[in-house]
Amino acid sequence: MNKYKLTLAYDGSQYGGWQIQHNSLSIQSLVENALSTALRTKTSATASGRTDAGVHATGQIVHFTTTTPIDIVRLAHSLNGLLPRDIRVLDVTEVSLDFHARYSAISKEYHYHLSFVKNPFKHLFAWRIHTPLDLIAMQAATHHFIGTHDFATFTNAGGSQKETTRTLFRLTLEPEDEGVRLEFVGNGFLYKMVRNITGTLLAVGQKKLIPSDIPQLLHAQDRRKAPAAAPPHGLFLVKVCYNIE
Amino acid sequence: MNKYKLTLAYDGSQYGGWQIQHNSLSIQSLVENALSTALRTKTSATASGRTDAGVHATGQIVHFTTTTPIDIVRLAHSLNGLLPRDIRVLDVTEVSLDFHARYSAISKEYHYHLSFVKNPFKHLFAWRIHTPLDLIAMQAATHHFIGTHDFATFTNAGGSQKETTRTLFRLTLEPEDEGVRLEFVGNGFLYKMVRNITGTLLAVGQKKLIPSDIPQLLHAQDRRKAPAAAPPHGLFLVKVCYNIE
Repeated sequence: MNKYKLTLAYDGSQYGGWQIQHNSLSIQSLVENALSTALRTKTSATASGRTDAGVHATGQIVHFTTTTPIDIVRLAHSLNGLLPRDIRVLDVTEVSLDFHARYSAISKEYHYHLSFVKNPFKHLFAWRIHTPLDLIAMQAATHHFIGTHDFATFTNAGGSQKETTRTLFRLTLEPEDEGVRLEFVGNGFLYKMVRNITGTLLAVGQKKLIPSDIPQLLHAQDRRKAPAAAPPHGLFLVKVCYNIE
Repeated sequence: MNKYKLTLAYDGSQYGGWQIQHNSLSIQSLVENALSTALRTKTSATASGRTDAGVHATGQIVHFTTTTPIDIVRLAHSLNGLLPRDIRVLDVTEVSLDFHARYSAISKEYHYHLSFVKNPFKHLFAWRIHTPLDLIAMQAATHHFIGTHDFATFTNAGGSQKETTRTLFRLTLEPEDEGVRLEFVGNGFLYKMVRNITGTLLAVGQKKLIPSDIPQLLHAQDRRKAPAAAPPHGLFLVKVCYNIE
């Protein structure tokens, strides 16, 4: 038996998220079907983490095991032939049997895009903001999130994680073409954590909160104290890092 | 009665093109419905030219006339509220009554995107090329198209134009992020002319033709002599120029 790691990019707009669900088409089911067809045997795929409906990925990592002998270049071509065009396999690499897409990850990077411009090509890939934003205040607020904190205020029921302490290594606000991008790098993220923090940073940008409100919000450990989550379509899973690389 | 000019951007992926048709949803019908609702009277919209199904625009120009008094800033907001998110009104300007979106145009600019990379976010916005391309040969071939020529070889039946001579002011090959972009600027374009020229330039890039074959192809005035058209989804109508500006 051998184990392989896939790097995937996908436009999540048309799907019900990574995870197999009964009422919508999941990226996982399409990837597992493609793998099962290409390898001629039922194959499951485990991702570094689920992405919600409408969330995109440019560097999702998935592992699978198989006893079928594999030519990794040919497999990438076959999978891309079998998958819809909005899901692409960027890379196939053999990994050791103790590799796990989720448990071996040492850090993950997410980007959240806010757009200030009406652009019909971006409406599924950035959150369109119609109000002026105080970017200096948002930048100041990001510092309160960096480091090791209990992020219970910034997660929603529905996550599998009981322990809500995480370390955010980096959270920066980067100007981009038609808006700004929030870059999150951390050792792990709770369910909806990036979207919840983004919603709160937006409230700071709109002067509904001030940066020094953040420590109290973190301390409260109560989701209801913080503003609403940002919508899924501005969010991209960009990179997952492992010790093996 | 007053006349107004709209600048529109749209992602053409979901539509049957600009022009109203019986079997598919057209951008024209959505724009006319939005105008008719906003102005409270049935209003028609005339574009600088039709775009085919799957073709995009970042600067389509449309005119309409109305007797309803208009606040142009408010109208842009209303139209964007009424239109789907993949069609945006970028600008509304009052123009003189003798302005015509199509007949007053002095030049148009189209871009055609070729992509060399598998990118699930570009599959509806660039033609994915899987073969190596001789970009030097393609660049050389572009020079044969520039200037005033009878472009009959590079148009398809279905266009309304009988006279097939046009002037191409500029045709350049520009490197971009994950591929190259062909930029066409001309005094007018025949039906499918940009896509047909792009298909022929691709054949040059793939060494199925050489640059010096182009003059003969132009001379033949026969669509069947030239390679197949490029698909619609790589094409963008970028700009329409008028004397009034």
